[in-house]
Amino acid sequence: MSDKTAYTALVEAHRQLYRYEHLSAIVSWDRHTMMPPKGHAARAAAEGTLHAHIHRLRTDPRLVEWLEAAEQEPLDAVERADLREMRRDWIDANAVPAELVEARSLAASRCEHAWRTQRPANDWAGFLDNFRPLLRLVRDEACLLAERTGLDPYDALLERYEPGMRATHIDHLFGELKAWLPGLIARVCARQQQAAPIAPQGPFPVERQHALSLALLDLFGFDRAAGRLDVSAHPFTGGVAEDVRLTTRYDEADCLPALMATIHECGHARYNQNRPAEWAGRPIGRPRSFGIHESQSLFFELQLARTPALAARISPLLNAHLGPQRAFEPDNLHRLFTRVTPGKIRVAADEVTYPAHVILRYEIERALIEGDMAADDIPAAWDEKMAALLGVDTRGDYRNGCLQDVHWSKGSFGYFPCYTLGAMYAAQWAAALRRALPEADARIAAGDMAPAFDWLHTHVWSQASRWETDELARRASGEALDGRHLRVHLEARYLG
Amino acid sequence: MSDKTAYTALVEAHRQLYRYEHLSAIVSWDRHTMMPPKGHAARAAAEGTLHAHIHRLRTDPRLVEWLEAAEQEPLDAVERADLREMRRDWIDANAVPAELVEARSLAASRCEHAWRTQRPANDWAGFLDNFRPLLRLVRDEACLLAERTGLDPYDALLERYEPGMRATHIDHLFGELKAWLPGLIARVCARQQQAAPIAPQGPFPVERQHALSLALLDLFGFDRAAGRLDVSAHPFTGGVAEDVRLTTRYDEADCLPALMATIHECGHARYNQNRPAEWAGRPIGRPRSFGIHESQSLFFELQLARTPALAARISPLLNAHLGPQRAFEPDNLHRLFTRVTPGKIRVAADEVTYPAHVILRYEIERALIEGDMAADDIPAAWDEKMAALLGVDTRGDYRNGCLQDVHWSKGSFGYFPCYTLGAMYAAQWAAALRRALPEADARIAAGDMAPAFDWLHTHVWSQASRWETDELARRASGEALDGRHLRVHLEARYLG
Repeated sequence: MSDKTAYTALVEAHRQLYRYEHLSAIVSWDRHTMMPPKGHAARAAAEGTLHAHIHRLRTDPRLVEWLEAAEQEPLDAVERADLREMRRDWIDANAVPAELVEARSLAASRCEHAWRTQRPANDWAGFLDNFRPLLRLVRDEACLLAERTGLDPYDALLERYEPGMRATHIDHLFGELKAWLPGLIARVCARQQQAAPIAPQGPFPVERQHALSLALLDLFGFDRAAGRLDVSAHPFTGGVAEDVRLTTRYDEADCLPALMATIHECGHARYNQNRPAEWAGRPIGRPRSFGIHESQSLFFELQLARTPALAARISPLLNAHLGPQRAFEPDNLHRLFTRVTPGKIRVAADEVTYPAHVILRYEIERALIEGDMAADDIPAAWDEKMAALLGVDTRGDYRNGCLQDVHWSKGSFGYFPCYTLGAMYAAQWAAALRRALPEADARIAAGDMAPAFDWLHTHVWSQASRWETDELARRASGEALDGRHLRVHLEARYLG
Repeated sequence: MSDKTAYTALVEAHRQLYRYEHLSAIVSWDRHTMMPPKGHAARAAAEGTLHAHIHRLRTDPRLVEWLEAAEQEPLDAVERADLREMRRDWIDANAVPAELVEARSLAASRCEHAWRTQRPANDWAGFLDNFRPLLRLVRDEACLLAERTGLDPYDALLERYEPGMRATHIDHLFGELKAWLPGLIARVCARQQQAAPIAPQGPFPVERQHALSLALLDLFGFDRAAGRLDVSAHPFTGGVAEDVRLTTRYDEADCLPALMATIHECGHARYNQNRPAEWAGRPIGRPRSFGIHESQSLFFELQLARTPALAARISPLLNAHLGPQRAFEPDNLHRLFTRVTPGKIRVAADEVTYPAHVILRYEIERALIEGDMAADDIPAAWDEKMAALLGVDTRGDYRNGCLQDVHWSKGSFGYFPCYTLGAMYAAQWAAALRRALPEADARIAAGDMAPAFDWLHTHVWSQASRWETDELARRASGEALDGRHLRVHLEARYLG
């Protein structure tokens, strides 16, 4: 009999879970990309049944016994790290009673479903009717999670997306950011005021943009025999590690949003395609965190695609697929990729103003969870912060203000900060790469992206959840997360 | 407390099963249409786990108690029919021990996987190595099923596809067919010898053929908001009733195979889209049988599409989507749709020679299951029957002979007769429609297909599994299955 009986049982239980999660990922991808409208009700029922089954597996009482017994078993370091992640998964699944999970899930479905029509109708009052009870349930859940984990309620939600991160740490990081960001935005805008780049002239047929997107995936190293690219209303990376499904969306009037979305999702996709296959199905093989995941998509988008070197690589692809035009010349293309314009919409924001959108949401959602703000007070806070951070007036425009994101409507709190943590990590990785390999920039400019991909593979992709996030960062870059790298990056690119 | 407690529990159990089968149908469709090659291993593991779970649900010991208790409950006629189908599902799932099901499933996977390369390599000897053990397991399964059901072994397999049908009945139907079919084939071939129709001149780009296929789906009444059309190596209709996924395949050199495959699958698809929604998830709501399912696809293909009236409707669609050419003129098109040419390949066969392909396979597979023929003897039997029925020489050409179909390689026996039963039912439905509504042909010729669709909806689609098959046929057409209608149909069309 093995001396790792309990751990072996846990591995097998997680392997089962992994297979059900595979099914869940594929049908969810299908729902966003393929499913016809009338398929919705039957699919919701089927997915609900599957999620309930997955919940049963994650709350199987035998898991507790095995987790305790495995602590006493002679595990090696990798197995210990795996066990640490198994325990985290168990806490996440078992802290909240199934009835509360279900009530929150129902309230979220209702709120999100209504939001899809309330947003275009600018109907804040209607949204509030569904959002107030949803927020109450999310707070209840946060308090229960807090009790179980000993964390503050917001930290307990954050733990799901960015384990180990605490709001006090984010306060510190974002506090520094707030000190220099508005000034930087103002200086960059002033500097860019004179020379507007030439805009691409459409129309750009969808099939040609799709062929271009596939060429970009090849350029950025996506393995198309182990995944595919499709179209959805909002780009995402789904599917499973062995079969990554990424999406983009095409606008016939402008070819740049799809191009940048494809490159961004490709960063997520390569992280998924390149975690160790021998850890597949084990919690240690999962992505480290949402912030680390975002650091990969943002490395591809910000540290690679928005450089002059990549503009020079992308320019001939644009010419080949969409026909040459002056807007696609490398210098102009790079200026298009680095154009800064404060605006109302987060997902359309450039990399300089984007953190302002995140800070605003973080401050509001934290206050909502900690009970320092009521749902009714969101618009006033939103307007005030948009004016202060970006000088943008959002009063009365809920649709392009506090109703613009899907996150809160589906009860998702604690996710927003990950976007900017990801941008900070991406800048930190780029700095570490340059220190480790001073010729990296020159090689990338010469058309060889291997230095970047190799560095990411060695330090992030191959590590999966082997280390807690701080340790991952220290091993990759010699230090825990430091927001200074984002500032250095932005100042060099936009004021250099 | 309800006086239908046991029946209610059964309904809930089948509703759960239905939801898992939904997941299974969608990921299976995805595997055939979307999945990239490297996704295979992880998908096989995920589907295997799902199928094992579905098997657990279908063999839940509580089902037996509920089935027995429900017999004593005051059920109405619809509930009794539902209970009858529940019992049939239970027998099918519980007659064979899980180990045998798994062993057969593994042997079938191995045999089918190897067949995919053995067929193009014409490697009969290699195929036999896998097929012998598979056939042994299928025979064991048939014998166990026979013991449990009191049927003969082949009938026990047939029961899965065509409940209520027996080999003695098929012997009678196919015996009559064999008496007149070779003579009919010879006369039709002689008659068609002089005037060959003009063949379409390609190439026909895939996107245009796809647009044409969508137009055909509209013409034949498919609800595109409740399903979709994609491409697979072999056309099929999958997905779920609420979200029907049908497929076709495009050949740039010839536009007619995709056209006819789309219309054929559309018949399956409409049967799935139009069974009663209030029976969804209950066994009574399932398709009646594979023969009845095939009668719908063949009604669309043979009784509708291959008529002069439909050639006149399809001709302008071909002109609009592929550009006009002489081959697309209605008269020529109808001659293309009714061209008879004895050949080696079943799926490429016309409606006159098709039954010969089915009779041959039925005779061989029945002998294999009943132990009257060894796997090694298949090629000799095949060659002899092809020569006798169609005058075609298949000696040594395994690839286009006994290796051409996937069915046996995956252990599927008892399915083949359903194709010709379906053609017989389709002819019988068409005759009943004409009797009930003498002006049907004229209305269809004038462009109004409602009479056909309405008849099918009333007599087949809306009935689902309400009646056993003979009763369904009697209620629809006044008689149980009678092969005479197929003969009358073929003689009228080809010798009239």
